[in-house]
Formats: sequence, C-alpha cells, structure tokens
Amino acid sequence: MSNTKEKSTIVLFSGDLDKAIAAFIIANGAAAYDHEVTIFFTFWGLNTLRKDQAIAAPKGWLEKMFGWMMPRGADKLGLSRMNFGGMGPKMIKHVMKKHNALTLPQLIELAREQGVKLVACTMTMDLLGLQEGELLDGIEYAGVAAYLGDAADARVNLFI
Amino acid sequence: MSNTKEKSTIVLFSGDLDKAIAAFIIANGAAAYDHEVTIFFTFWGLNTLRKDQAIAAPKGWLEKMFGWMMPRGADKLGLSRMNFGGMGPKMIKHVMKKHNALTLPQLIELAREQGVKLVACTMTMDLLGLQEGELLDGIEYAGVAAYLGDAADARVNLFI
Amino acid sequence: MSNTKEKSTIVLFSGDLDKAIAAFIIANGAAAYDHEVTIFFTFWGLNTLRKDQAIAAPKGWLEKMFGWMMPRGADKLGLSRMNFGGMGPKMIKHVMKKHNALTLPQLIELAREQGVKLVACTMTMDLLGLQEGELLDGIEYAGVAAYLGDAADARVNLFI
Repeated sequence: MSNTKEKSTIVLFSGDLDKAIAAFIIANGAAAYDHEVTIFFTFWGLNTLRKDQAIAAPKGWLEKMFGWMMPRGADKLGLSRMNFGGMGPKMIKHVMKKHNALTLPQLIELAREQGVKLVACTMTMDLLGLQEGELLDGIEYAGVAAYLGDAADARVNLFI
Repeated sequence: MSNTKEKSTIVLFSGDLDKAIAAFIIANGAAAYDHEVTIFFTFWGLNTLRKDQAIAAPKGWLEKMFGWMMPRGADKLGLSRMNFGGMGPKMIKHVMKKHNALTLPQLIELAREQGVKLVACTMTMDLLGLQEGELLDGIEYAGVAAYLGDAADARVNLFI
Repeated sequence: MSNTKEKSTIVLFSGDLDKAIAAFIIANGAAAYDHEVTIFFTFWGLNTLRKDQAIAAPKGWLEKMFGWMMPRGADKLGLSRMNFGGMGPKMIKHVMKKHNALTLPQLIELAREQGVKLVACTMTMDLLGLQEGELLDGIEYAGVAAYLGDAADARVNLFI
C-alpha cells in the first residue's frame, strides 16, 4: 500500500454477457478512481476476449469443437438468465442502446484506454485450445501466480 | 481502517434464492460482528428487493416485459440449480422451516434491523425499467461509484 | 497482519466442476505462496467433499431425496455451461489429462498436503441432510462466524 495506487482485481470466469458487463462497469469505475485494475480472464471468461472472425489455427479435433461451441467475442455472449435462445441478449442490448449505456465492446475499449490490465489465463487457453492469435491484440498472458501477485496487494478482489 | 469499524460489502448480482440466502447470511453474520455492511443489488439481484404486489408504474413495452418475466420479490426467486420448475425452492423452504432457519424475507428484515445498508443500483434499474415504488421502502439508491467507495475501505468484498 | 502469514479465503458455493477446479487452482496457488488458505464449502459446494460411495445414514425422506439428486463427490460434478448431459465434463477431463493438468480429486489432495483448510458449512449440512460420515475424512466443520473470522484477516476473499 504506502503511497502507491490502490489496486483492484477481478477474475472473470463467467462467459455470460450480463456478468461481463458488470465486471467491466466495476473495472472502469475503479480505474476512474485511479485504482490499478487487473481483469484476469479464465475459463469461459476468455470468450469475452475472442476476435469475432474465425482465425485459422492448427488444432486438434477437441480444441476445434470447443472453438466452434464457444461464443466468439464480446458481441456473441449469452445471458446468465432469461437468455431465451438469444432473444434476451437482444433485449438487453436494445435497452442499453436506448439508455445510451456503453455496449460491452465499448466498455472493453474504455477499459483499455484507462489502462485496465487485461490478462488471459494461459492455463485455460491450453485446455480449451485457444491461441494468442484468436484473442484481442495487445492483451497480456499469464498464469494464476501473476493473478495472485496482483490480488495480494489489492483490496477489492472479485470473482465473477 | 484506524479505529473505525471494519467494513464488508457484497454485490448481489444473482437473482437466485440460494445465492440471495447465502448473501444475507454472510451479511447478517458480519453485522453481528459489528462490521459496517453494504449489499449492492444489481442486475437480477434487484428482484430480491421487489415488492410482491404489482405496482402501477408508467413504462414502455420492453420494461413491462422485463417486469413480467422477472420474479417479484424475495419469496418468488428460483434456485441456481435443482429448481425443477419451482419444486426445488419449495423443498428448500420446507427444510429451512423444519430446521427453524430464517426465510429470505426474514433474513432481509434482520439485515435491516442490524443496519445493513441495502443499496439498489440505479443504472440497472434504468435498464430493466424498475422504479423506486416497485422496490422495498427505505432502501438506498446509488451507482457503482458509491459501491466502490465502500469497497475500497472494506476487507471482505464479495460478488455473489 | 503484522509479521504473520497472508491469509486468503474462498467460499465455494457452486457445485460445478469448472468452478471447483478454479477454486482449487487459486487455493493451491495461494498456498504455494505461503498464504494461509481456507475454503469454506457451502450449499452445492459441499458436493465436492462427498465420498463417492453411498454411506448409510439415518435420514428423513426429503434429506434422502437431496442425497440422491446431488452429485456424490468431486468426480461426479457437472459443468456450469456446455454440460450436455455429462459429455462436457468428459471433454474437460479428457483435455486436462492430455495437458497433464491435475484432476479435481488430485487438486483436493494437493490442497490438503499444502495445509489448505477445508471447512464444511454445518448450517447447510443440516439443511441438505448431509452428515459428517458422508464427507471426506479429516476436514473441519464450522459455521459462517468461523468463515468471517478468517475472512476479516484476509486480503483475498472470493465467493465462487
């Protein structure tokens, strides 16, 4: 602590649109308060960082299957409830637009502008067969040790 | 910190009965330990605070639809698993009664008696079209900045 | 704090395989960093600790039904998404084996070797009708007060 910045970390485990939105709203709020913020994307949370186009990548059969089944990027995520086969996310996006709320891709962009550290969990990338070229450019890659290093210095640590 | 009270915060994002019960048990426990406790209700968690009767409120079509589809109050929430179309919550309520455990409405009442601060997220209220008259009387209304102000002073910060 | 060890706590509320794996990977990482780590198992998270064989225990009808319906132990848990009636967990276990990642039972074993404190929530055990003989040997039993005692001294407190 001392005279350094406050730190906050979020583990984004979930691949749900609503939870990702909540995570980025909190992260952006903390960054606006001048916290050093890290979001550590693991398991389904990694889907938030996927590019929306298909990226050619040499993969085994099972990795390909995970790649097909998982949503490709922030704009393709479903809701944790009331998803209704994709109708729910459309409704949420509609009301967010109506209220001039930032979309998830815009929230991600804002986070990057504010210097929020976006870190992809390399262990889960291995498991799910995701490769660096498939994720947004300019993010960081690390394991649980790096996350814990940040979290041990932070006061607000959330698992979403 | 210094000689002030310990603080704890919970973001209740989930609209599941079991998670809401867990949130209030932790909050009430912390309040009993003399922590200053804030629960910040956002997204589906706001349903916990809804009054159980229909409240007339001028709304657009989409807001009305959200209002109809979302559970109206603590007594109407479903389970995060084993919901079985409402049988699961009945089973849980039955065993809770059998063991003289407090119901969710009673846990909320206890939290209020203990001075737990219940804060409804105004941004999500806008999005889902929920209005102050539809939520329990006497709660507070704030945005993510207020939550972060509390969380930055707290040691136990959970996202449920 | 002073010169004592750093502390970390995790509430494992979820009964999902993927979330349990994440919880134990974080817990084992923190223990490797010499943190004092507590995992507090509550609600569906208790299923992680169940022995995989049926244990004779005198129970009422509803407790028996919970016992039948809930997964019996770390090897029987489903995924929070892409479960596909049990195919998803098989896929995840397959890729974990392929990458020489520890299985959940091995992660639990490692946690115990590293001195991670595994605590079963006695209140939920009562509610779900789980008895000590049905859970892994050598774990601890406590209520929310004990959890809060640990969490109030810890810096990393997660709810999973």
